[in-house]
Amino acid sequence: MTNNWWKWVCVLFVFFSFTAKAESQKDVVDYVNPFIGTSNFGTTNPGAVCPNGLMSVVPFNVMGSPDNKYDKDARWWSTPYEFYNVFFTGYSHVNLSGVGCPEMGSLLLMPTTGELKVDYKEYGSRYKNEVAKPGYYANILTDYNIKTEVTATLRSSVARFTFPKGKSHILLNLGEGLTNESGAFIKKVNDCEFEGMKVLGTFCYNPQAIFPIYFVMRVNKKPLSSGYWKKQRPMTGVEAEWDKDNGKFKLYTNYKKDIAGDDIGVFMNYDTKTNEQLEVQMGVSFVSIENARQNLEEEQKGKTFDQIHAEARQAWKDNLSRIMVEGGTEDQKTIFYTALYHTLIHPNILQDVNGQYPALESDKIKTITEGNRYTVYSLWDTYRNVHQLLTLVYPEKQRDMIRTMINMYEEHGWMPKWELFGRETYTMEGDPAIPVITDSYLKGLRGYDINKAYEAFYKSATIAGKGNLLRPDNDDYLQKGYVALREQYDNSVSHALEYYVADNALSRLAKALGKTKDAKLFYDRSLNYRSYYDKQYGTMRPLLPNGKFLTPFDPKQGENFEPSPGFHEGNAWNYTFFVPHDVQGYAKLMGGQKAFVNKLQMVFDKGYYDPANEPDIAYAHLFSYFKGEAWRTQKEVRRLLKENFKNLPEGIPGNDDTGAMSAWAVFNMMGFYPDCPGNPSYTFTSPVFNKIIIKLDKQQWGREQLVIETVSPSDKAEIIKKVELGGKPYNSFRLTHDQLIKAGNVKFYLQ
Amino acid sequence: MTNNWWKWVCVLFVFFSFTAKAESQKDVVDYVNPFIGTSNFGTTNPGAVCPNGLMSVVPFNVMGSPDNKYDKDARWWSTPYEFYNVFFTGYSHVNLSGVGCPEMGSLLLMPTTGELKVDYKEYGSRYKNEVAKPGYYANILTDYNIKTEVTATLRSSVARFTFPKGKSHILLNLGEGLTNESGAFIKKVNDCEFEGMKVLGTFCYNPQAIFPIYFVMRVNKKPLSSGYWKKQRPMTGVEAEWDKDNGKFKLYTNYKKDIAGDDIGVFMNYDTKTNEQLEVQMGVSFVSIENARQNLEEEQKGKTFDQIHAEARQAWKDNLSRIMVEGGTEDQKTIFYTALYHTLIHPNILQDVNGQYPALESDKIKTITEGNRYTVYSLWDTYRNVHQLLTLVYPEKQRDMIRTMINMYEEHGWMPKWELFGRETYTMEGDPAIPVITDSYLKGLRGYDINKAYEAFYKSATIAGKGNLLRPDNDDYLQKGYVALREQYDNSVSHALEYYVADNALSRLAKALGKTKDAKLFYDRSLNYRSYYDKQYGTMRPLLPNGKFLTPFDPKQGENFEPSPGFHEGNAWNYTFFVPHDVQGYAKLMGGQKAFVNKLQMVFDKGYYDPANEPDIAYAHLFSYFKGEAWRTQKEVRRLLKENFKNLPEGIPGNDDTGAMSAWAVFNMMGFYPDCPGNPSYTFTSPVFNKIIIKLDKQQWGREQLVIETVSPSDKAEIIKKVELGGKPYNSFRLTHDQLIKAGNVKFYLQ
Repeated sequence: MTNNWWKWVCVLFVFFSFTAKAESQKDVVDYVNPFIGTSNFGTTNPGAVCPNGLMSVVPFNVMGSPDNKYDKDARWWSTPYEFYNVFFTGYSHVNLSGVGCPEMGSLLLMPTTGELKVDYKEYGSRYKNEVAKPGYYANILTDYNIKTEVTATLRSSVARFTFPKGKSHILLNLGEGLTNESGAFIKKVNDCEFEGMKVLGTFCYNPQAIFPIYFVMRVNKKPLSSGYWKKQRPMTGVEAEWDKDNGKFKLYTNYKKDIAGDDIGVFMNYDTKTNEQLEVQMGVSFVSIENARQNLEEEQKGKTFDQIHAEARQAWKDNLSRIMVEGGTEDQKTIFYTALYHTLIHPNILQDVNGQYPALESDKIKTITEGNRYTVYSLWDTYRNVHQLLTLVYPEKQRDMIRTMINMYEEHGWMPKWELFGRETYTMEGDPAIPVITDSYLKGLRGYDINKAYEAFYKSATIAGKGNLLRPDNDDYLQKGYVALREQYDNSVSHALEYYVADNALSRLAKALGKTKDAKLFYDRSLNYRSYYDKQYGTMRPLLPNGKFLTPFDPKQGENFEPSPGFHEGNAWNYTFFVPHDVQGYAKLMGGQKAFVNKLQMVFDKGYYDPANEPDIAYAHLFSYFKGEAWRTQKEVRRLLKENFKNLPEGIPGNDDTGAMSAWAVFNMMGFYPDCPGNPSYTFTSPVFNKIIIKLDKQQWGREQLVIETVSPSDKAEIIKKVELGGKPYNSFRLTHDQLIKAGNVKFYLQ
Repeated sequence: MTNNWWKWVCVLFVFFSFTAKAESQKDVVDYVNPFIGTSNFGTTNPGAVCPNGLMSVVPFNVMGSPDNKYDKDARWWSTPYEFYNVFFTGYSHVNLSGVGCPEMGSLLLMPTTGELKVDYKEYGSRYKNEVAKPGYYANILTDYNIKTEVTATLRSSVARFTFPKGKSHILLNLGEGLTNESGAFIKKVNDCEFEGMKVLGTFCYNPQAIFPIYFVMRVNKKPLSSGYWKKQRPMTGVEAEWDKDNGKFKLYTNYKKDIAGDDIGVFMNYDTKTNEQLEVQMGVSFVSIENARQNLEEEQKGKTFDQIHAEARQAWKDNLSRIMVEGGTEDQKTIFYTALYHTLIHPNILQDVNGQYPALESDKIKTITEGNRYTVYSLWDTYRNVHQLLTLVYPEKQRDMIRTMINMYEEHGWMPKWELFGRETYTMEGDPAIPVITDSYLKGLRGYDINKAYEAFYKSATIAGKGNLLRPDNDDYLQKGYVALREQYDNSVSHALEYYVADNALSRLAKALGKTKDAKLFYDRSLNYRSYYDKQYGTMRPLLPNGKFLTPFDPKQGENFEPSPGFHEGNAWNYTFFVPHDVQGYAKLMGGQKAFVNKLQMVFDKGYYDPANEPDIAYAHLFSYFKGEAWRTQKEVRRLLKENFKNLPEGIPGNDDTGAMSAWAVFNMMGFYPDCPGNPSYTFTSPVFNKIIIKLDKQQWGREQLVIETVSPSDKAEIIKKVELGGKPYNSFRLTHDQLIKAGNVKFYLQ
């Protein structure tokens, strides 16, 4: 960071200058710092996006220069922006936030001046004066002295470029992007409009998860001239001598009709006056070019850049102000509202303004008539806490997300696992749709066909054979009660542990639906986790097909994303306490409460805990299951918050995982956390704010708000001395969702 | 030829077997051997095409195997087919016939069996039993035991593949082709239909002569499955490790929406029964996908393969039977009708069935309401004889071609020079539209706006500066009367000689239009050729800007396509007699008739004559301008015919030049040749047939036929003893078009 700390100082200066002057009217939106998580592999970005918007416009700075610290082509890289990089090559349209695989981040829009250059290595620019706010980003391209600003609607964007006097250019590069797919098509519609398509996909290198993005781009001033470029295929021998463009970027100056290729782009040439502003609108769709155009027209018609920015800001204000906090430091408020902001990016809407969307794993285009169709379901991450947050605070979003999931089942025959713009990428493991919907249902959220959902859950839980797309190793699981390790790195234990959690949730749902026999079946299954517990090491341990443990075995193998037999993205310690549905039973297996608590404390003390990976993120909350040990939960959570969540680019402990890390922070900063997905209950943590008001959907929850108050003698007080629930003393550190809602008020006394 | 002569024997056997059995009904179509010109760089092809049809379907055998004698990627190569090559990689759709630069020849359609392969180097096949007839081609792919047959309508094609039992595939490769452009787009419409676009262009490596071809492909049976392939961009480092497809052909098995890229294709998988026939239709358009579909539907609806083939054959019969010959050998008839066939391929129609076509050098789509819009104007070649043949025998085609040229002027501001599917490629030199239209006009062909044409001609003849797109060196030409050599290989003499010919034609047109002053201006200019004549060498010689001849100088430099200062595709000898408009005057300059004749005879005797290049192809006819020397014309023409035009793949002396070589043969075999473009007259040669009946357009020419009879004591008689014109003795070896038409009958007595 030595070379870059000045940059951060500048950004903070800009950020606080902006917020300070309006301190008196400072609202929740001003507490969002979109730079949080943009380094340390947080993979969030500072781009302009609306709440759950399809469109995002992100400064793309991860290619083209050796001066960048991180280059998308030189290493595994999954985000269009890194805070400490320096080389800007355009704005990417439609991006993922907080993911671990490269995808999307294409349609790169770049303004330049001087001689026309179409090779991003040549036309990229250094920049300064970055400003990022919800729905807005700006910088100054120092190589060109161009001010660039972007804002967005749900399905479209607009960029405003303030040029110096002279020759200026606007470029749209369809050859590059974060995605590893290539191939695009462009057609000039008129002097000010281009339309086209780009192929995206191969998320997490799934070679068949391919989908098209359609776009319409408009400029608000007719260029002096325009054309295409295309990198020419290399030629050899005599052909190479005859074609001077071979292997290079060729400019198509006369040709204005359709062009297609792996590496193509559009250029528009202008002669700008001093400070002349040009605007570029982009509409997108995953259905068709026509829909991209309609999205652009309906969402932007007649509106100025500033109006669109104001509307985006208002949308964020409406969303973020569902939770109002008092007290805490400015940094804590910033961390909190930025985390809340990050939980409201994915899943994002997919349907066009006319309701059309691509059906899951299908060539069909369907139309939604009510609510939203969502996409980008990173369910292995989000089933743990994001959907619990949405259920409580944004039930209308969660309802539509559940409806979407059930529609996906009807379209594809399976619930989503890691769905991405109409493709099931099958990334990660488990059966995470079950806890997502069960949790909402058991909390009382309705408005979807729960029987259809149950049908889907029952199918994936009970079908044997490779044809089970969600549980490919269900044969073992059904026959042996565990998934046997059959290949060295098959993640078998991780798979099975996820199935246990899902089946436990499913047993709760079955019970709620009156299916007692099913409920018992799935409950019994969910306890089979016990077979993995190895008393010798005191950890989960991979099992072989013959029922014996894998030997040799090292429970620490698998740190730092090294492969580990039986475990996915972690080691045995990161999974050993991942039995949220049977904590007491597991403690007995381990030798009782004390043994359990001591071992869990050791995991934290010895640094076996990974704050950035999902399987263990609810470890700290498990102490609260045991009498007299809840203080450990409060203490560890406070420590983890302090160490891992900061008002800094490094302020998220690794990939945000489409909001899962952020949702962890949001809940824990408010004083309660849903530590068992599919179990409608929470564990208390010690809030960092004096007062938190969660505005509730009265029709859904029967009350208008949930108030959390904290009486704290000092900032350092982090242990809960006592709790009052609904004004009455409450003698537990856990409570159900119903209890919370009925009480409407929790008052914490810290010490 | 040592390894391949059996192939030719087989083809001849098939050809004659077919024709022999129907000898009694053998009609003109049976005398066409489409294999003539398919070797020796004739660059004709044996594909299926209708007269002046937009669509042609050609067996593509010039890539993918070291066993091919000629490979498009290993050397300069301009035809999709070579007779002695052996490796078939599909049928290319829309091709050029007889050109010298690589272009078109894409949309490669290939049937295979067994394991699916998508790399043409792997899926190509050897073949046998080739059959080529007008509108039909067939072979057997020996690697797969598939019989393939193709036929065509004007704007569409159909292929019939007869498969063996087992796994079969149909492939459409959009990544390869004869064109050096790349980039394509495909969309699956339904299980049996794909639509798309491919970028074509860079003809003669003109980097901006780019245009799209649109297509719709249909199969007559739903495939078991289908998908795309795309060659992946190469990756390096960690990316390469993670993407196993990098740098390879990747199969897209699930993705069915739009795909685009440099090197893409479609595959369709079948399980065929023994001898199961599958048909693939292809419609094309240079306007839009919708038009491609409409072309396909309107031209093929409800018709079987055999019906379409029969209609194509009938169209050829209608066209070819405008000239009926009697006598001559079977080979002579074959050579004659094949040559006539080759003159009826380009220019070809461009407009779609709805009349739409791309305007020249424009983004506009226009609609033709009457007649045909033509394209592929290789005018530097065809102005010499092709259009003269069309004017006489197919005046309705020539009229539409002239109308097209005038429309092109209105669209682009300039007459065409080497127009290609809406692009002016500016290939070769001169101002060839002038003689084309002048020649027709002076012969009495009407039905177009001659004043508009004259306006265009006057413009290119008189505008100075680089802005003159047809005559870029008009500054010199206007100021000095010649084009000075300013760069070593600027072809300055060739340019000027073409301008003289054009200006001479223009002076005739001006005179006919009553513009006497213009007529004198252009006539005077046309005599400036004299300044190039160097008495020292007795040849044309490049002039420097200071008016002196280029030194050193070797009139033979430039043979065999070596570059030669001042001369394009030839040497000084190939151009020295290229003054068709002032033969008598030139003879005086050279020292009189005897000097002229002797030198011209020397050119033939010493082998300075190139039978395959346009500037000298009328040399032999010049003898007839001089009393007592016409026998030399007759003798040399007979010799040239015999030596250069054969019923063999090598039967054309080099590039057919979109029919110019063939038109030379057609005229000379009939006994007269138009040796001065723009001068409506002919020189007699000795016919090779006993009787020739040319069916005339009575409305145009006032009579129904022109009859040429030949009384010849033996096959070896080649000198004209006497001529009767309209039954009366005729005492010249030259005559005007009017004389010929008025007479209606020419009778040659040979000795």
